[in-house]
Amino acid sequence: MGRTAAALVIGNEILSGKVQDTNSRSLAIALRGLGIEFQRIVVVSDDVALIASEVNALRHQHDLLFTSGGVGPTHDDVTVEGIARALGRSVVRSSEMESRLRTHYGERLTEGHLRMADVVEGTELYPGSDARWPTMVLGNIFVLPGVPQIFLYKLEGLLPRLRGTEIPYTTRSVYTSADEGPIKPALDRTVANYPAVSIGSYPRWNDSDHHVRVTFDSRDEALSLAASEAFAALLPPATFIRAE
Amino acid sequence: MGRTAAALVIGNEILSGKVQDTNSRSLAIALRGLGIEFQRIVVVSDDVALIASEVNALRHQHDLLFTSGGVGPTHDDVTVEGIARALGRSVVRSSEMESRLRTHYGERLTEGHLRMADVVEGTELYPGSDARWPTMVLGNIFVLPGVPQIFLYKLEGLLPRLRGTEIPYTTRSVYTSADEGPIKPALDRTVANYPAVSIGSYPRWNDSDHHVRVTFDSRDEALSLAASEAFAALLPPATFIRAE
Repeated sequence: MGRTAAALVIGNEILSGKVQDTNSRSLAIALRGLGIEFQRIVVVSDDVALIASEVNALRHQHDLLFTSGGVGPTHDDVTVEGIARALGRSVVRSSEMESRLRTHYGERLTEGHLRMADVVEGTELYPGSDARWPTMVLGNIFVLPGVPQIFLYKLEGLLPRLRGTEIPYTTRSVYTSADEGPIKPALDRTVANYPAVSIGSYPRWNDSDHHVRVTFDSRDEALSLAASEAFAALLPPATFIRAE
Repeated sequence: MGRTAAALVIGNEILSGKVQDTNSRSLAIALRGLGIEFQRIVVVSDDVALIASEVNALRHQHDLLFTSGGVGPTHDDVTVEGIARALGRSVVRSSEMESRLRTHYGERLTEGHLRMADVVEGTELYPGSDARWPTMVLGNIFVLPGVPQIFLYKLEGLLPRLRGTEIPYTTRSVYTSADEGPIKPALDRTVANYPAVSIGSYPRWNDSDHHVRVTFDSRDEALSLAASEAFAALLPPATFIRAE
């Protein structure tokens, strides 16, 4: 059994529909590549008490917790405070971060910028992609920013740190022109015969390419291939489009 | 105080990164238009026990709960079973849904299709956008499908049912060429002077248009306008781009 992970996405802008969250999908793809099971995403607003309560629930229920958003210098950036409250720790100014900010901003440095040097007591500053802008790590909590490009850049820098002994999942896909009703017998039989393969059925709406994509996921590449081939062989005549 | 809402997005395909969830954003935009406060999004896998537990938490903590996904005919469509378990009810075949499915599919009807006639005992079938394909409603739970086009179509059909007495939020935005450090004094002062306005600061990365967008949200249009104008007047010289 490999490690499990959750994401806590923080930001009023997601819940008001101003911004589409794409960070949790970037994280999903990265965790998948590592073979870590991504079990839950929670999105909440910029509220210290809510963040604290979710951080505490998620960090105990999962091996790894990633937060997204709320780490800049402005009033609505309250993730650090939320995590501090969850852990019952103080927020302290990091001299290491302060010195990096002073070097970077020079004469342009404001008191506002310095707020980004405030960290939860006991924070590890992991160098990651760019030693000048380390990522805050608190035990099993990885604190990432909301801006998608920086989220992804920092996430990539965490990969060596996150890599464990898990074997990544392999996905095989079968595309069919039939809808879910007629393929259900083939699907049910394959599900019964391959209990160790996670099988998903994804219908499309007005897609000129295919009607349903069926995916076969397993940490055992040969098994996902075998399940996909068994399913394809059971499909109603002339409904198979392709496998990949 | 208006009503609050949560979304439960169900699907392994989101957590594996195969698919980007866009339904929760469609819901965010719709709820915003209605003036309903969207407080939380939770994404979990196709697991009956997990769905049941989340449904029970979310339906009690919020006035409205919307589920997305897991309502088709295949083995991985377990949302109805999850909601039934949450409510301590049975899954029963709806004769109304069965007759609609028989009419629609005619001779092509399979046992698989009929699984879509299985509903939680006591389900209300709300006609919505298309009386042929009603939406399942259970008290404050609205059950929507995962396919984005159908999700949106059904959501639009629910709007008359969801509309209450809430006054929708108005958003004013100020775009600036400064980064968050230098605008923080103007921001902090505006936040202090307009406690009834929800103010958000959203930095962009390598955007040729602007560096930070600051938004001012209120159910009182005049107040959000006043806050945005007060903030714009406090910005450092030559950093204001536009307001809208």
